[in-house]
Amino acid sequence: MKTSLSKKKINLDNMLDHIHVFAPATVANMICGFDILGFALEEPGDEVIMRKTSVPGVVITKITGDDGRLPMDADKNTVSACVQFLLQHLELEDRVGVEIELHKHMPIGSGLGSSAASTVAGLFAINKMLGDPLSKEELLPFCVEGERLACGHGHADNVAPSLFGGITLIRGHDPLDLIPLPVPEELVAAVVFPQVDVPTRDARQLIKEKVLLKDAVIQWGNIAGLVAGLFKNDYDLISRSMQDVLIEPTRAILIPQFYEMKQIALENGALSFGISGSGPSVVAITRDKAMAKQIVEQIKAHLAESEIESYGYVSGVNVDGPKVLN
Amino acid sequence: MKTSLSKKKINLDNMLDHIHVFAPATVANMICGFDILGFALEEPGDEVIMRKTSVPGVVITKITGDDGRLPMDADKNTVSACVQFLLQHLELEDRVGVEIELHKHMPIGSGLGSSAASTVAGLFAINKMLGDPLSKEELLPFCVEGERLACGHGHADNVAPSLFGGITLIRGHDPLDLIPLPVPEELVAAVVFPQVDVPTRDARQLIKEKVLLKDAVIQWGNIAGLVAGLFKNDYDLISRSMQDVLIEPTRAILIPQFYEMKQIALENGALSFGISGSGPSVVAITRDKAMAKQIVEQIKAHLAESEIESYGYVSGVNVDGPKVLN
Repeated sequence: MKTSLSKKKINLDNMLDHIHVFAPATVANMICGFDILGFALEEPGDEVIMRKTSVPGVVITKITGDDGRLPMDADKNTVSACVQFLLQHLELEDRVGVEIELHKHMPIGSGLGSSAASTVAGLFAINKMLGDPLSKEELLPFCVEGERLACGHGHADNVAPSLFGGITLIRGHDPLDLIPLPVPEELVAAVVFPQVDVPTRDARQLIKEKVLLKDAVIQWGNIAGLVAGLFKNDYDLISRSMQDVLIEPTRAILIPQFYEMKQIALENGALSFGISGSGPSVVAITRDKAMAKQIVEQIKAHLAESEIESYGYVSGVNVDGPKVLN
Repeated sequence: MKTSLSKKKINLDNMLDHIHVFAPATVANMICGFDILGFALEEPGDEVIMRKTSVPGVVITKITGDDGRLPMDADKNTVSACVQFLLQHLELEDRVGVEIELHKHMPIGSGLGSSAASTVAGLFAINKMLGDPLSKEELLPFCVEGERLACGHGHADNVAPSLFGGITLIRGHDPLDLIPLPVPEELVAAVVFPQVDVPTRDARQLIKEKVLLKDAVIQWGNIAGLVAGLFKNDYDLISRSMQDVLIEPTRAILIPQFYEMKQIALENGALSFGISGSGPSVVAITRDKAMAKQIVEQIKAHLAESEIESYGYVSGVNVDGPKVLN
């Protein structure tokens, strides 16, 4: 990787002074596709403002929306660490300096790809500043490295949809093999984040190393059905397929009121309901914005009865990935 | 089922005197999709000749190509038992009589859906004789029942593609949910049956009840990739996806020279190579008839060196399912 990237022709005279970018939150797993599927949301998302400095190196100058939980130390913060890592691969670490403001607009540890959105925003920003020397395909491994730093495992099911937009299949991880899938126009996600803490690491540790083959067969039948449903634009098939018999029964234990929320979503007509990523956020898939709003409101009201605060989002599928805001 | 089928309007005055039908062999699993995928071959396949008799009841008058292994007793033979079963559901068992000749054109216990092809031929034949009262969807549960009688498990991954033709996804088994998948025009299968005995029951018993989740993730990434590849007509993606990390390592043990045959296929340019159904037949997927022929010849020659006799077939995907021959 280093060899080919270090040959990229980059004219630093043309480097931008500053940039302001947005990268979207994501729903990893897409309910039935553990570790291989994910889609990007129109909202929420994180923002990065990056400014060129005269001194080489990467510094974090400001972080908002994190309740003081993220490190300001540029070596420890995932966003700055990934930007540094990319500059090293481009052999620019001694010639380029940037300062980074990170504005988080979604909760950390929510299961909405919070760290992925920040990492993608940071790497998308530095690439834009340098005149887009890297394709998104070339940026992806750096985003995955960011996930490894942030979560302890380098999965692509959040960073890939955040970077490419749309619905992404990660056919294989070694080497990374990304397949964009068709996005049915009417899909609307109703997302609710109940404010309880479920670190990704813990959510992964709950999952057993071995699964019953008969359950795996049901799961991959559903995964195949979902992929076929997306290509055929068949909402019934999508609905029948988006069921998780393998991971949900274990992870749902960590999410208060999970089955009550599921009942609310399905009674309101959702195509499907499940855990977003490793949770505790939950997602209902609908084909109607009004229905999605109603589901979010009813779930929030239900959680409030149990004195659980929550955030809610209603969002179509973001098909563009990150974007420049200024 | 009984209630709705018994209301079918069937005019026995119009019943055909006789019919001669063909039903195709099938490649279950399609290498990576254990228990959920299968496709039909243009050849080989089994034939059924059915004749109306004046005495009610179902009898077997002749079986060829089975080396005397199949029962002539109509209650024990899968084909006649399924035909009887269907007639009972139509409440015609006391009014309709047929005699059946079964001509097997493929080896039994080959992993090519031998019992499925016979069952489908028999049920397709009686349905035609009666004036097509049942749709293929309605015939399918009877075909599955035939598989249960023949193999001890009622999977649909052979009968469904044999009955419908093409490439079939069985999204779910309870209830049966069949999704036809697109058939890339150039796909040609090179099939070799090494003459060693691997009963389906034994091949299933070898497989462990539990699998590693990490292997299951690789498998369902491949399954999703294959489905996407079929819709996109993307042969590279089909090739990358048709890999079985879960079942092949266990079942290959029962198949002599498996990895040597795989090497021959891949060195000759096959997109993929694996076990057909529960084996011992193996299948190479190519996009070229000449290549498929060469692979079959080289594998047969290689097996001959080890004094293993074999049958070989070169076949496109049969998109029609069973057909009337007379």
